Amino acid sequence: MTARRSRRPAEADAPYLLTPGPLTTSRATKEAMLRDWGSRDGAFVALNARVLERLEEIAGGAGGHVAVPLQGSGTFAVEAMLGSLVPPAGRLLLLVNGAYGRRMARICERIGRDAVTLETAEDAPPRAAAVARRLAEDPAIGHVAMVYCETSSGILNPLAEIAQVVAEAGRRLLVDAMSAFGAIELDVGALPCDAVVASANKCLEGVPGMAFAVIRRTLLEASAGNAPSLALDLHDQWQAMQESGQWRFTPPTQVIAALDQALAEHAAEGGVAGRGARYRRNCQALVDGMRALGFETFLPDALQAPVIVAFHAPADPGFDFRAFYDGLAGRGYVIYPGKLTEAETFRIGCMGRIDAEVIEGAVAAVAEVLDEMGVKDRGRRAA
Amino acid sequence: MTARRSRRPAEADAPYLLTPGPLTTSRATKEAMLRDWGSRDGAFVALNARVLERLEEIAGGAGGHVAVPLQGSGTFAVEAMLGSLVPPAGRLLLLVNGAYGRRMARICERIGRDAVTLETAEDAPPRAAAVARRLAEDPAIGHVAMVYCETSSGILNPLAEIAQVVAEAGRRLLVDAMSAFGAIELDVGALPCDAVVASANKCLEGVPGMAFAVIRRTLLEASAGNAPSLALDLHDQWQAMQESGQWRFTPPTQVIAALDQALAEHAAEGGVAGRGARYRRNCQALVDGMRALGFETFLPDALQAPVIVAFHAPADPGFDFRAFYDGLAGRGYVIYPGKLTEAETFRIGCMGRIDAEVIEGAVAAVAEVLDEMGVKDRGRRAA
Repeated sequence: MTARRSRRPAEADAPYLLTPGPLTTSRATKEAMLRDWGSRDGAFVALNARVLERLEEIAGGAGGHVAVPLQGSGTFAVEAMLGSLVPPAGRLLLLVNGAYGRRMARICERIGRDAVTLETAEDAPPRAAAVARRLAEDPAIGHVAMVYCETSSGILNPLAEIAQVVAEAGRRLLVDAMSAFGAIELDVGALPCDAVVASANKCLEGVPGMAFAVIRRTLLEASAGNAPSLALDLHDQWQAMQESGQWRFTPPTQVIAALDQALAEHAAEGGVAGRGARYRRNCQALVDGMRALGFETFLPDALQAPVIVAFHAPADPGFDFRAFYDGLAGRGYVIYPGKLTEAETFRIGCMGRIDAEVIEGAVAAVAEVLDEMGVKDRGRRAA
Repeated sequence: MTARRSRRPAEADAPYLLTPGPLTTSRATKEAMLRDWGSRDGAFVALNARVLERLEEIAGGAGGHVAVPLQGSGTFAVEAMLGSLVPPAGRLLLLVNGAYGRRMARICERIGRDAVTLETAEDAPPRAAAVARRLAEDPAIGHVAMVYCETSSGILNPLAEIAQVVAEAGRRLLVDAMSAFGAIELDVGALPCDAVVASANKCLEGVPGMAFAVIRRTLLEASAGNAPSLALDLHDQWQAMQESGQWRFTPPTQVIAALDQALAEHAAEGGVAGRGARYRRNCQALVDGMRALGFETFLPDALQAPVIVAFHAPADPGFDFRAFYDGLAGRGYVIYPGKLTEAETFRIGCMGRIDAEVIEGAVAAVAEVLDEMGVKDRGRRAA
């Protein structure tokens, strides 16, 4: 299929993580963790302030929006955003076309927020006109929440169009920008958008352990007492940090120090534009290489975000996902060991501290593993 | 006051963190973070399983109790324990004698759990007889929650006595063992105790970013659907991990790898007995050294846990806490920059990867800073 031989990653890089995250990070980012920090000491308070300022800048929110960090994974920040910003008596419209949209619905059920959903297929973006209609029909809806890049399929949802109709209808927009923040254009001031959440370990290329929200200051100020949780109360977290510069509860100091280094590398790469350009090159190399091997992508190119690509499983009965995964892992490439709910697919990520050469090595490894498995027909299985 | 000169810590160790946490960790523990892990890959799943097994062993719970990890700080696990194990209609008795007991009351208020408190002074442990009386008077109380070592004062509460009366009354006991787990005797099977929570970055000497609960299996099995949160649902977290060995939501992979190394060092030191013995030597060196300088401890020795010591602020009007803190930090010793609510005190920790020699260096630094400040009278201020 290809003349290129897959090349094992060097020991220091192994394995490459071609997943939805955690991802491959730079050596310097990991080395930033080789120190212990007093979490209430001035040195750490200064580092933390620098990180938050940089996150606000990346979101385009300097001035009107503030960054609030949170311990835990991205889901912790999604739950914190919904619980802290939607009042107990509020109604929320959720735009759902994948696992992360559905997860927001589960969260609302648990935390007691009245959520109605507008669901589309996993390969169909929500339409602004449909959102506008729904908002016109139901004046009780005060907030709309959506996922910018649905990591479950890799689809990039039309944030700008939806932000416009939500603003025109005078409602609040809350965005899960987990796999987009830092690599895909997002300007909370211009959109407009009231809150976005993301995590340290996706396009920002930090390590996992913290997430954050960037929230319109006036909305956050008005949200005291909303949260049905102490740990996940973004207003309380923000208030305490305003007063002392310190986190309320023990922060993951090393994870934050790693993010500080990762953000410096993000800036050095040219910020969102530079990071996004590299990911687009990675994504193109991945899609081109896999198509050359006979694979089909789940999404048409126009809907594909350059962060993770879902491929249809090959039609050939010799294809076994477990053996495929293990064969790639044995060659130093870890892909996502799961699939979409509605289609027989597998996913390969192109985020993280990797370049197109790494992707080409991964594609060469795919070819080798398929040859070993005797898989000839890489087209999609009949539905 | 002392002939010993304070010695700056070596660059690799600087500064020593003499705080309630995060603490000084070993170089090897930090170096365990110099790798990226696929969080759903077999290598990480195996590491995670090893960590949980070791936590169950340390708790004495092998068999009847299971360890459930959680992203975030210790407070996240406390909230998760209260929300997941106390049913929505349940009533909880909280034993309060410090900031962490009060925090449990704030959590219950937020998450909608009916909590009544039995409060004693910060230097007074709860009494088993009082607990027994309260339980006899109020049959609606199904659970009792308490803090084993109240980090706000350093007091060691009488867990064994209270566990006995709670068991005799047929109620459930939930324990915040944050600053005790791994260094102070605790056997969930023998006590008996239904759940304990702790975090990676206290006596286990890992880095911050994850916490965990060790819960009686039968209680956990019966707790499905209790939690008013998705992120903080320990039953859901446990169920998913039972099925796949994986965390539900992105785990802090590097933090867990560091804990794996820290647990190996804990075992090599002789487990709880060895770790506790070192902390007791540290604590003795700290108390002896500070008393020799004229300081008075907040607690009598019989109530003092060997993890953090509160000292009365000196009576001398020349004593300024900020200058004291900065003088110590400048010499490479970071102490806790806060005080108890009810008394003019400051705190110095003796946990973490430090020994009595480090403590002696810190005491020498205290003497130097006091001399610079011209503080002669180190006795307590009149109340």
